Amino acid sequence: MSSMSHGEIVTLLAALGVLIGTARLLGELARRFGQPAVIGELFAGILLGPTILGAAWPQASEALFPHDGPVPVALHGLTTVAITLFLLVAGMEVDLSTIWRRRIVAVTVGLGGMLLPIILITPPAFFFKTWMDAGPEATDLTFVLFIATAVAISALPVVAKILIDLQLFKTDIGMTIVAAAVFNDIVGRILFALVLALMGPLHGGGLPLWQSLALTAVFMTVALTVGRVGVDRALGWLNAHASVPGSVLGFAATGTFICAAFTEWLGVHAIFGAFIFGIALGDSRHLRPGTRQTIDQFVSFIFAPIFFATIGLRVDFVGSFDLGLVLLVLIISTVGKVGGCVLAARWTGFGGRDGWAVAFGMNARGAMEIILGLLALEVGLIGDRMFVALVIMALVTSMTSGPLLQRVLGRTKPVRFWDFAGSRTFAPTLHASDRDTVLAELANIAAASGKIEGLDAEAVTAAALARERILPSGVGHGVALPHARMPGIPQPVVAIGRSARGIDFDARDGQPARLVVLLITPLENPELQLRLLASVAQVCQNEAAVARLLAAADWTEFLAVLNESTAHA
Amino acid sequence: MSSMSHGEIVTLLAALGVLIGTARLLGELARRFGQPAVIGELFAGILLGPTILGAAWPQASEALFPHDGPVPVALHGLTTVAITLFLLVAGMEVDLSTIWRRRIVAVTVGLGGMLLPIILITPPAFFFKTWMDAGPEATDLTFVLFIATAVAISALPVVAKILIDLQLFKTDIGMTIVAAAVFNDIVGRILFALVLALMGPLHGGGLPLWQSLALTAVFMTVALTVGRVGVDRALGWLNAHASVPGSVLGFAATGTFICAAFTEWLGVHAIFGAFIFGIALGDSRHLRPGTRQTIDQFVSFIFAPIFFATIGLRVDFVGSFDLGLVLLVLIISTVGKVGGCVLAARWTGFGGRDGWAVAFGMNARGAMEIILGLLALEVGLIGDRMFVALVIMALVTSMTSGPLLQRVLGRTKPVRFWDFAGSRTFAPTLHASDRDTVLAELANIAAASGKIEGLDAEAVTAAALARERILPSGVGHGVALPHARMPGIPQPVVAIGRSARGIDFDARDGQPARLVVLLITPLENPELQLRLLASVAQVCQNEAAVARLLAAADWTEFLAVLNESTAHA
Repeated sequence: MSSMSHGEIVTLLAALGVLIGTARLLGELARRFGQPAVIGELFAGILLGPTILGAAWPQASEALFPHDGPVPVALHGLTTVAITLFLLVAGMEVDLSTIWRRRIVAVTVGLGGMLLPIILITPPAFFFKTWMDAGPEATDLTFVLFIATAVAISALPVVAKILIDLQLFKTDIGMTIVAAAVFNDIVGRILFALVLALMGPLHGGGLPLWQSLALTAVFMTVALTVGRVGVDRALGWLNAHASVPGSVLGFAATGTFICAAFTEWLGVHAIFGAFIFGIALGDSRHLRPGTRQTIDQFVSFIFAPIFFATIGLRVDFVGSFDLGLVLLVLIISTVGKVGGCVLAARWTGFGGRDGWAVAFGMNARGAMEIILGLLALEVGLIGDRMFVALVIMALVTSMTSGPLLQRVLGRTKPVRFWDFAGSRTFAPTLHASDRDTVLAELANIAAASGKIEGLDAEAVTAAALARERILPSGVGHGVALPHARMPGIPQPVVAIGRSARGIDFDARDGQPARLVVLLITPLENPELQLRLLASVAQVCQNEAAVARLLAAADWTEFLAVLNESTAHA
Repeated sequence: MSSMSHGEIVTLLAALGVLIGTARLLGELARRFGQPAVIGELFAGILLGPTILGAAWPQASEALFPHDGPVPVALHGLTTVAITLFLLVAGMEVDLSTIWRRRIVAVTVGLGGMLLPIILITPPAFFFKTWMDAGPEATDLTFVLFIATAVAISALPVVAKILIDLQLFKTDIGMTIVAAAVFNDIVGRILFALVLALMGPLHGGGLPLWQSLALTAVFMTVALTVGRVGVDRALGWLNAHASVPGSVLGFAATGTFICAAFTEWLGVHAIFGAFIFGIALGDSRHLRPGTRQTIDQFVSFIFAPIFFATIGLRVDFVGSFDLGLVLLVLIISTVGKVGGCVLAARWTGFGGRDGWAVAFGMNARGAMEIILGLLALEVGLIGDRMFVALVIMALVTSMTSGPLLQRVLGRTKPVRFWDFAGSRTFAPTLHASDRDTVLAELANIAAASGKIEGLDAEAVTAAALARERILPSGVGHGVALPHARMPGIPQPVVAIGRSARGIDFDARDGQPARLVVLLITPLENPELQLRLLASVAQVCQNEAAVARLLAAADWTEFLAVLNESTAHA
């Protein structure tokens, strides 16, 4: 039986550790800059692959990620499993009823956003095949069809993530964007399945084209009708008669791999089957939230990073960078997608800002482009230069979609008061024992922290006191949030103190404040003060959270409680 | 770059789907018979491998699980990842403080249970090497040391699972068994690391023995002291400053693979590093229950089945079955383990039944024996016959440990009233509208179900009514549980009815009963009636559960709510 040697196992495990570690690290960093994690995860591969590590220290790159022998085969197997499971999760996010309710606008915007980029890219793809880096296995038809699909498809997971981050997901515009993106996704995937089926015999598939296409259509139809009901019944039965969640997780994995194997055998790639099975699974009302979360989190944070990081290992992003090609792909896909969506949205009644919002939302590409690009590269449909151009296009559109959407809607991310605090503005135990000296103590801490140059502690104390005299800031439940607006400071600073005995802030419920949050905000920005106050109030409504804040051992633990209190998952 | 072809990907995905599906199916079946799931998962491999499928239909077995080429390499990579992650989860279950508090008894029982089997097995292993099926790479020292380790080690995960199932985990005896099993586990693993290190140069490791051992000792010490604190700090920091649970999951996977790669490089196998990292991770108070659950469930129900099922693919369990060897290994390991533990337990003050309980609890082997046996097989330390004997020994001791423990303590598994009900004893909507006719209706349903031959509905109604007159059975919250004890019936039967308008069962809170559970139990077994009543009461204390029971569309959904209401995880 073929297997790996001791040394190869060491390499495989070390490679996995380094890949996941680097990918998650850069993913977190991306998030810190307000970007989707997938961007950081892709950069991890660029860092570890031929582009940077391979150029600077080829021996290290080859030792960790050898090109020949069993290790790359095992890694290929693992990434195949990873992408299959990732598509399962993506499918689970699709809500068939949402898209059905908004089917008119979804179809219109979805089609509009595909047609224009396809129209724009077809002439250059047809006439400049070589410059556009067609691969050795490409024909006129398959190449044009693939490039058209690649510039036309939106990335549902990225779109959904951006909408959730901006708290737009459940709004009218949000749901419209999601429905259009789902439609777009499905059509895009079918187009791509067609491309692969057209190439079928080339990569070893034995089925003739018409059989492959017919069977794919049958599979999709059966899976989304009879199959969907069957999955729902099966989960209901498992919940009643088998172990939970063990049986459901086993069922999900089995179904995913069997469907993936089936569509791969059909010649339309494994990910298609996993995606369709994911739709059927996610649609079941018997799938419990805890089980959904287990699959979602494990796959999103362990498997997906492995997959996205290995992409960068394949290609040299500097050596294969072709500025002209990158610009052409980027411009045509963005202009086409945004233009097509705006026109289509306007036609269905989303005028003005809302239309632009839908269009910018739909412009996010990401995971799917890259996955399709990688497949195309593997089967010899495109070359390295085109692959690099597609990845860069996906990255740039993903990075710009959120900020553009925010700008056109005048939306901003929710403010969190602790983003303006830190260990140096945190007094675990206040010395002072009455309101006025507590205010002075916190004001001094804020000034001493150096967060704002030349902050005048006395002026802050006076302003906060004046505010207290008009309206006491004890909000009850043992929390007080005195606040002061100061002229000429560039950004807010927040000082937080705790008092074991409690300080009288004249709260309505008569309780002394054991948690005091002093908000110092720019005089010029009254709205920011309101939003910070709302952020404190939101956390402090939760009495359990306040109790844990009072018990936290240090600033790190304090921060963890705050983060947790607003976490979605 | 070496990779897999289209056809090979189909094979890999299909093999994974079939493996997980069969393993989980047989695992559920094992659970149904009160056995640990791992037993069914192992049988899945025996079914799919050379023993059964390979003998009956060699072409199918070879098509799905080919012996050569990239597919077995990819499967080997995947099972390596699977077993590494499984050991992470096993390590997370170890509670260092528990073992520390019971260190005297844990060390005594742990050592007693190892010494006696080692003493008993050493003479045959030394004098009858060939008959005991020593592998080509075995020396006197490594073979004896390995066989001694293999018969001496208990399986912590199996032990813990049995104790949880019997609701003994948090009792004095339960904690003693767990502490001794943890100690046993750690010593056993160190012994095995020693065996591998002694063989080191044979399987390609470059480190001399003394370096390998010294570095292992340093790694263990550092990981469990400085490393443990470091992991705890890191998780605290990630909770406060990074995304949750994404950063923690990434951290856990990275740490696991890096530690696994390191110990594999040392020559003591990857699982050791993963296990030690798991202890450090599981020990952190910053690891949130949700994240722990995500890792635990995904690994236990998707990866572990893959691993355990592939074991059966390697060996022909019929062709390599050697009755003499199986009996020798089974008898020595059981007699030695149970005898050693009883003596040691008695010495530390666990006399009589408790001592036997500890010993039977410790006799459960399972996962670890099999994992070590597989490694020994791979490095040529033992042959197929010995491997089969070890697996059968592990299976038999795992299957008998729970029943023996139950018998010696007079414990029984908790009774669930719905185990005596079914769709034929369930009336979604009762026709009757007063107490007496409802009792008659339910009694008729119970009789008509055929669950008990010749059950007399009128006698049941009369007995239940007589009971009602003495003490009304409306327990409030809209639930009534009339009951009747009948002479000469072999087992209980439970009829369940729902009434939308509600039926007056004279409950203290005045509410009419909308859920009526009629318990018919053998007259001769008053204790069983009490336990069934307790089982109904436990579910019906939970008002939300009652509401969902009333809303359930059919018996399957009704059952799902009941199962869920008592699920642990």
